[in-house]
Amino acid sequence: MTDIKNNINNDERAEILCVGTELLLGDIVNTNAAFLSRELASLGFGVYHHSVVGDNPERLKSALELALSRADLVIMSGGLGPTKDDLTKETVAAYFGLPMELHAESLTAIREYFARTGRVMSANNEKQAYMPKGARVFQNRYGTAPALAIAKDGKTVIMLPGPPVELIPLFFEEVAPYLQERSGHAIVSRNVNIFGMGESAVAEKLDALLCESQNPTVAPYCKEGEVRLRVTARADNKQEAERMCGELVDKILESEVGRFVYGIDAESMEKVLVDTLHERKLTLSAAESCTGGLIAKRITDIAGCSDVFFGGCVTYTNEVKERLLGVRHETLEKYGAVSAETAKEMARGVRLVTGSDIGLSATGIAGPGGGTDATPVGTVFLGISTPDGEDFRRLSLSGRRSRDFIRIVSATNAYDMALKWILAKK
Amino acid sequence: MTDIKNNINNDERAEILCVGTELLLGDIVNTNAAFLSRELASLGFGVYHHSVVGDNPERLKSALELALSRADLVIMSGGLGPTKDDLTKETVAAYFGLPMELHAESLTAIREYFARTGRVMSANNEKQAYMPKGARVFQNRYGTAPALAIAKDGKTVIMLPGPPVELIPLFFEEVAPYLQERSGHAIVSRNVNIFGMGESAVAEKLDALLCESQNPTVAPYCKEGEVRLRVTARADNKQEAERMCGELVDKILESEVGRFVYGIDAESMEKVLVDTLHERKLTLSAAESCTGGLIAKRITDIAGCSDVFFGGCVTYTNEVKERLLGVRHETLEKYGAVSAETAKEMARGVRLVTGSDIGLSATGIAGPGGGTDATPVGTVFLGISTPDGEDFRRLSLSGRRSRDFIRIVSATNAYDMALKWILAKK
Repeated sequence: MTDIKNNINNDERAEILCVGTELLLGDIVNTNAAFLSRELASLGFGVYHHSVVGDNPERLKSALELALSRADLVIMSGGLGPTKDDLTKETVAAYFGLPMELHAESLTAIREYFARTGRVMSANNEKQAYMPKGARVFQNRYGTAPALAIAKDGKTVIMLPGPPVELIPLFFEEVAPYLQERSGHAIVSRNVNIFGMGESAVAEKLDALLCESQNPTVAPYCKEGEVRLRVTARADNKQEAERMCGELVDKILESEVGRFVYGIDAESMEKVLVDTLHERKLTLSAAESCTGGLIAKRITDIAGCSDVFFGGCVTYTNEVKERLLGVRHETLEKYGAVSAETAKEMARGVRLVTGSDIGLSATGIAGPGGGTDATPVGTVFLGISTPDGEDFRRLSLSGRRSRDFIRIVSATNAYDMALKWILAKK
Repeated sequence: MTDIKNNINNDERAEILCVGTELLLGDIVNTNAAFLSRELASLGFGVYHHSVVGDNPERLKSALELALSRADLVIMSGGLGPTKDDLTKETVAAYFGLPMELHAESLTAIREYFARTGRVMSANNEKQAYMPKGARVFQNRYGTAPALAIAKDGKTVIMLPGPPVELIPLFFEEVAPYLQERSGHAIVSRNVNIFGMGESAVAEKLDALLCESQNPTVAPYCKEGEVRLRVTARADNKQEAERMCGELVDKILESEVGRFVYGIDAESMEKVLVDTLHERKLTLSAAESCTGGLIAKRITDIAGCSDVFFGGCVTYTNEVKERLLGVRHETLEKYGAVSAETAKEMARGVRLVTGSDIGLSATGIAGPGGGTDATPVGTVFLGISTPDGEDFRRLSLSGRRSRDFIRIVSATNAYDMALKWILAKK
């Protein structure tokens, strides 16, 4: 890979320094570094180093000095807890020669947090309200450790709590606006969610947009059969940045890629499907063989799905396909379990038995075993049954793909079939 | 947290240096660092730093120099690819003042890899067969980039390919034995899998073992309601290390924790359940409400489960519970959907309709909405139905837990009920 994709404006260098012995022991994976990198890139920062150190005063001090010698902005995560091992604030204060002082507003906020969550506040938690003098403090509604920023002598250090459930919302709500305010310009990002077209095909179709556009920039990410395009615009004010972003998103929608776009800033395809079912007052069910419950599981990951998802069946054996779903014995005999006919009868069966508007189904070979020359691993038939009729889709995923990949992509295709049917209904 | 758990023998300092611009852009999460940290800890190394740099010659050189100034062993991942941006080997060779030379065995292996996978080898791939003079080369059956080690002047650098599907098996098969051979002693680890007892209770019961035992060491890890104890012994030879490990594992099994142990070196509880079902020639099905397909999904994650898992139903609505599973209308009216009675009837229904030996069920409130004072979020009833009779388990997971957590722990509890019933059968 080339060093930093060249369509990102690297105005300023940033560095990520994560603090926590649990990271060095491998007890947890450092997802914060990836999250912060992605967000900093979209804010126009070039990130050239990640570092991790434990809760050790000397090593933390050295790591901070090194990071600040290489970058003007250092984002730290972790080490803001209540114990004496949590030394991030103290180390940064010492670096800048600032005294620690009690921050009354933070103490109140921490007390309120404990009152609200019904937990007992220990004396240690008071330590979390001490801040380096002059720090910009960001209150934390998600935990006990406030986040903070110190800007001095042309250097900025931002300190965030380690748990991602606190770090992520604090970044979006407090840190991103702070960095924008500091930079004197506004940055706005939009994500375009694409399914059914591979990354290289998307890149080819949008070649001009991807290469030529310096502002907004367009960066592709791909994951399990989906492509996400992140459009980022920078302008003097938010309205202008939003307008620029919107214009480029419109260009993508008008291009050949447009008809593969299933959402803008969508969390996932199943979320879009659940929202669309709600809007249209339609209901869904699923009959699964090779996906083994994954179609239902991803739908039911979404809180509030129970109004639109009636349920489903996981039918691994032929006998259960017949008994639960009413798939005909002759269909299984004649076409086999992995066939368009079986997929359609499964979808019909689950729709009728649950009384939902739409029935989805998946039957195939997820591997690693079970493949034949005629039906190799990665062959999956998806079915859809609606009051308007039935349809199927055949996937031929390479046998070199993992069982997980085959199952995930199969489920996403099933959602895609349901969405396409709903949207075609008008 | 304290700096490095004090029951690990830190004979030697190691450091992890990951190379790849995709990490700095946040396109991928650095799971390699966590994996390598865990494995190095169990081999007796103290890991004090992780670093990530991009594919940039100067920054890579500086990062390597820094790592080798702090540690005697540096494990690198990434930058072994065929392009001119892949510079890991060249940078390490320059550091040690070694020339690069063609490694004939590697060239043959790379050619064979391409022939075997039916892909076309490009001229670039020949670059992957050039090695620093004197390097120990580890052939890579999982990809095109051989791994390698250079030991000189008391310092050792090990270079592994970046993709985890290559890095992980190469570490276990080649690097761990190399490090053991180099250290002159053998290290053996065993994992004890525990369910049904929390981490702090396990720590309390095993206090003496956890604190006092220096060799073997015992380190606890916990994840989603499960506790894993990693026992690591070091001895002059493998047999002796295995004997020492076995002795300590036996002590754990004989302790009060013993009856909560569901496996030794088990991949997961669902894997143990599937294996046990195979051994006993028993079959399983599942009826799910709040787990929404997760019980089936985790079972069907396991290749070869289809002989023992007949299928299941995801029944979100009461109507579907009645129709698919034959739950009685009066039961739902009288006790509600989230009740022991409904759980038992769901388990019975899915067992009868699929014709399996064991039926499992889950019905509850996964949240975030849907809780009441009488049945708060986190209340889950699990049912089991067998030819011997029926039973249920009530979980009261704190409402502050996430929807994901509640669903995962519910599924694991259902597996635990099935396993306990099978094992009690004898």
